Amino acid sequence: MRLIAFEHEGRPALGARMGEEVVALADAIPGLPADPLAAFASLNLPEGAPALAEKLAKAPRRPFKGLKLLPVVPRPGKIICIGLNYVEHAKEGNNPIPDYPAVFFRGHTSLAAHGEPLLRPKVSDKFDYEAELVIVVGQRAKHLTEANALSCVAGYTCMNEGSLRDYQRKGAQWTVGKNFDRTGGLGPEIVTPDEIPQGPNALRITSRVNGQTMQDSNTSDMIFSVPRILAILSEVMTLEPGDIIATGTPSGVGYPRKPPVFMKPGDTIEVEIEGVGTLVNTVEDEAA
Amino acid sequence: MRLIAFEHEGRPALGARMGEEVVALADAIPGLPADPLAAFASLNLPEGAPALAEKLAKAPRRPFKGLKLLPVVPRPGKIICIGLNYVEHAKEGNNPIPDYPAVFFRGHTSLAAHGEPLLRPKVSDKFDYEAELVIVVGQRAKHLTEANALSCVAGYTCMNEGSLRDYQRKGAQWTVGKNFDRTGGLGPEIVTPDEIPQGPNALRITSRVNGQTMQDSNTSDMIFSVPRILAILSEVMTLEPGDIIATGTPSGVGYPRKPPVFMKPGDTIEVEIEGVGTLVNTVEDEAA
Repeated sequence: MRLIAFEHEGRPALGARMGEEVVALADAIPGLPADPLAAFASLNLPEGAPALAEKLAKAPRRPFKGLKLLPVVPRPGKIICIGLNYVEHAKEGNNPIPDYPAVFFRGHTSLAAHGEPLLRPKVSDKFDYEAELVIVVGQRAKHLTEANALSCVAGYTCMNEGSLRDYQRKGAQWTVGKNFDRTGGLGPEIVTPDEIPQGPNALRITSRVNGQTMQDSNTSDMIFSVPRILAILSEVMTLEPGDIIATGTPSGVGYPRKPPVFMKPGDTIEVEIEGVGTLVNTVEDEAA
Repeated sequence: MRLIAFEHEGRPALGARMGEEVVALADAIPGLPADPLAAFASLNLPEGAPALAEKLAKAPRRPFKGLKLLPVVPRPGKIICIGLNYVEHAKEGNNPIPDYPAVFFRGHTSLAAHGEPLLRPKVSDKFDYEAELVIVVGQRAKHLTEANALSCVAGYTCMNEGSLRDYQRKGAQWTVGKNFDRTGGLGPEIVTPDEIPQGPNALRITSRVNGQTMQDSNTSDMIFSVPRILAILSEVMTLEPGDIIATGTPSGVGYPRKPPVFMKPGDTIEVEIEGVGTLVNTVEDEAA
């Protein structure tokens, strides 16, 4: 299944994409909560996936074309990001290979939907791309082990974890550079694990700026694998349905290049992950 | 006015405290949204404060005693924290005086209500207290200036921004050490700015562990004042109703003491801020 979020009568709604058609989950599930996060939790993924698929098959469909997409989880409870999770990316920034992940959070105000322009802020032009595989949590989880960690995963999606490199280093923490409004593309769809039989750590991951490949790696190169990330994080904090976890970016980002490459208005950035999809965003300047 | 959050029929509700009595906001405002964050936004504070006060005066009251309190904003959109914002605290940890704040986020899963026991996790006993003044945002805001910044402030509350010092330094970022479940006390009340005529940067701030004063400073000693924090953050991200901003802790925390002092089961920790209130939490161990 491929789940999306879209605007319906001015409010966020969840849907399932079937090619060029969409089922609004509210049309398939009587009594679905209106709040998207509560609705998502009620799906009880991954266990609830077969029951959901059955309901979707019988429900009315609407055209995908013309829908205003939202970030696949419109207002996640937590947006957890892992930094420096690929060896070559740590090296390109002259960072040591970590033995514990660098973790920071983004706020929902930093997200952009698939197809929505990313915003280059007024105060910085050091706007870098970062292709990342994102875990979408479907079940409440604490103290997961690597062996059982994937049991809480509703699915996967793509992120362009857009970062303002000068602001990332202004203070002692990276959070500010990772939280400018509408700088992080998220989508296009949440793909349930059954569609990715090879698992989350065997997927080619690439990014392109205006068609030119900038990052080309494989999630098998992660320092901390998806199950390990889930075990490490859930030792600390309860993971909840709709929490999202961005798992770090491979080498090839813009700032260490000579000369540096940054995203600028008019650019088109694509993040493609094997089996998961292709996230596409253009860039525009924040209004003066 | 002094606003609280409490559990009502299994769901979070907002209220206003009047001494030993409470008005549930839903009893005073017909059509108040059920979602606490949407309800809080609809109050439109600070502008809406006089209208709200008028409605509260006519509404039925219930006893405060016996209510199960929740963190004053039960599920903030963003929980933004400023590190190293008092000169003496930066010095006690051998940190340089910053010229731009260290910013990190907490998730709502890390919060505890006034009176609710904080949780010392299984994996660490380096559980430190941090008394902090918290700004509660009432209005959507972007690109505030220091001159107009306070126009978005719904009120102030107290936080014990509990931190696991070993986990804070495990990775390249502090976020993990700041996000263990139920380690950050928040409350007891959101106090509207009219009750603090001296403004947010002239308040004595203290913490006590089992009655012994550990921190005793004044918010006038902040490196980045409340208006400056709001201007800096809103240059980057849209602030939204219900976002909370913890403004950093003064010197006297536990880890640099000789010997170090950490919170342990059975301890009682109080955070008192002049005009704002006293937040009280005990400590218990996470279940084995």
